[in-house]
Amino acid sequence: MAVYTHIDAELLAKFLSGYDIGAPLVFKGIAEGISNSNYFLQTDVDRYILTLYEMRANTKDLPYFLDVMHHLADAGLPCPLPVDDKKGVSLQKLADRDACIISFLDGVSVSHPTAEQCASVGKVLADMHVAAGSFTQSRDNELSVQGWKDLASSVRDQADTITPGLAKLIDDEIAYLEDHWPTDLPSGLVHADLFPDNVLFTGDKLTGIIDFYFACSDMFAYDIAVCINAWCFDEDHQFLTSHAKRLTEMYDIVRPLTAAEVEALPILCRGAAMRFLITRVYDWLNPVSDAIVRAKDPLDYVKRLAFHQHVKDAADYVI
Amino acid sequence: MAVYTHIDAELLAKFLSGYDIGAPLVFKGIAEGISNSNYFLQTDVDRYILTLYEMRANTKDLPYFLDVMHHLADAGLPCPLPVDDKKGVSLQKLADRDACIISFLDGVSVSHPTAEQCASVGKVLADMHVAAGSFTQSRDNELSVQGWKDLASSVRDQADTITPGLAKLIDDEIAYLEDHWPTDLPSGLVHADLFPDNVLFTGDKLTGIIDFYFACSDMFAYDIAVCINAWCFDEDHQFLTSHAKRLTEMYDIVRPLTAAEVEALPILCRGAAMRFLITRVYDWLNPVSDAIVRAKDPLDYVKRLAFHQHVKDAADYVI
Repeated sequence: MAVYTHIDAELLAKFLSGYDIGAPLVFKGIAEGISNSNYFLQTDVDRYILTLYEMRANTKDLPYFLDVMHHLADAGLPCPLPVDDKKGVSLQKLADRDACIISFLDGVSVSHPTAEQCASVGKVLADMHVAAGSFTQSRDNELSVQGWKDLASSVRDQADTITPGLAKLIDDEIAYLEDHWPTDLPSGLVHADLFPDNVLFTGDKLTGIIDFYFACSDMFAYDIAVCINAWCFDEDHQFLTSHAKRLTEMYDIVRPLTAAEVEALPILCRGAAMRFLITRVYDWLNPVSDAIVRAKDPLDYVKRLAFHQHVKDAADYVI
Repeated sequence: MAVYTHIDAELLAKFLSGYDIGAPLVFKGIAEGISNSNYFLQTDVDRYILTLYEMRANTKDLPYFLDVMHHLADAGLPCPLPVDDKKGVSLQKLADRDACIISFLDGVSVSHPTAEQCASVGKVLADMHVAAGSFTQSRDNELSVQGWKDLASSVRDQADTITPGLAKLIDDEIAYLEDHWPTDLPSGLVHADLFPDNVLFTGDKLTGIIDFYFACSDMFAYDIAVCINAWCFDEDHQFLTSHAKRLTEMYDIVRPLTAAEVEALPILCRGAAMRFLITRVYDWLNPVSDAIVRAKDPLDYVKRLAFHQHVKDAADYVI
């Protein structure tokens, strides 16, 4: 969560006068988001989230991200819907920042997912990929192979201060990934960051997927690989086979996986582990001075990567 | 607002199983409170605030503060009501901290109060003081004259680093206050910190008073003096006469002020300015390393104090 931009009641009232969503009853900064300020807003009409995109966020792709949410919400996915003002505009300026009001979704994020919750994640991910078929915009995944290489260059001199040998491990793995990275799998709009923080449940019922600010165009199966890394390891970094198999099983029911996609899962899981390893290494070595959250431990992903490097084939991930 | 203690969904569900308030639909850390972690909690029954009292908070008086809220809510004041668990207990332990669920109040805090909002504050403050008549517990105000003297001793050597002459200004003023501080005015339960942050409005309607963690036993008119300092100066520290007069006028309608109380307002306003000046000086010189908010500027209260030092009599504050 970020340091908050203070929006006082008077400024809020003025801002909301441009909308048809009623008068504010509740307005509270919430502890969510890394590079955005987020506020819970309840009016006499409904509940919303107001997001301010702080200066350091990359805002050029905001129209894309909002269009993604629009498209998926219209397709029936449980994701936030950007709210238009009276003129039909959802992307606004507030306190010198880009700002947007989105609809509010019930639910809480789980920290210790069950296999059934993983199954729900598999289903909603497949629903999203099916809905992606009619989405016509594209955006390169800046955190794919070339992005990893760029980040690896910038951290190479310091990576071994985290743990000896880390720089070589990263370089060797990226070289391998570059040689073996698939290019011809079914592709389209992917979430690319569907961690438990970004999924809401009430009990076992999945009620929301949020935070589309890494959404991009990539292989659908890469999105599954991200989820396997994010949902299918326990706190001691042990792989949870049944979690992964339930996730891919439910995915496959909604959107059947091709043989090539299944076969590629081990390399895609290695790539997804590298994506989070390399950004965590970067964040660890380049702490943001006003960040409230401590950088996450990169070594979690060294361990996940090691698991994926040693699987024999995709049978570890699918039924 | 404090650094948050992370309460995951599983721990929350277990904690809530001790209550009869339904299952969680929403649970979000909110940017409120200095030494507490606060969470917005919505269940299928109602909305609540869950507060965790962090280690550095003084927790010995928590039962008193909760009893204050109980008493005032029962008397019809718009203040949060501590929620009992199934065993009738409101003060709990969660994540090794004292914890309490309280009822949720609609409303937003204003940053630029109007005279009419000040009138509402005067009325609710008087309502509270009337209700205080049947509250039998007491708690010394640790931030009255002796408290100011203790804090002044601890900052004396460094105060002039904030502005030259500040140490002498503080010492001289405390000496004057000690000589002239009234002792025989009507007293009882006071809020002692009723700043705009701690009052909720929907439009001009006052819907809540919150944060009773400075509540104590003191002169009722001192509580008015705190409000005059908190509500009746503009951003350039200019005194807003009509704000103050509307505040005291509405107060007086509900709980008529005695002649002695009115006469004491100038010295009480000086004391209230000193109370916030001296704690701000202390916080400025002793920053908390993990605090998210920057310490507030002590000089704001040097300016308010200067105003109160130069009023001729109470006519500046009352009609």
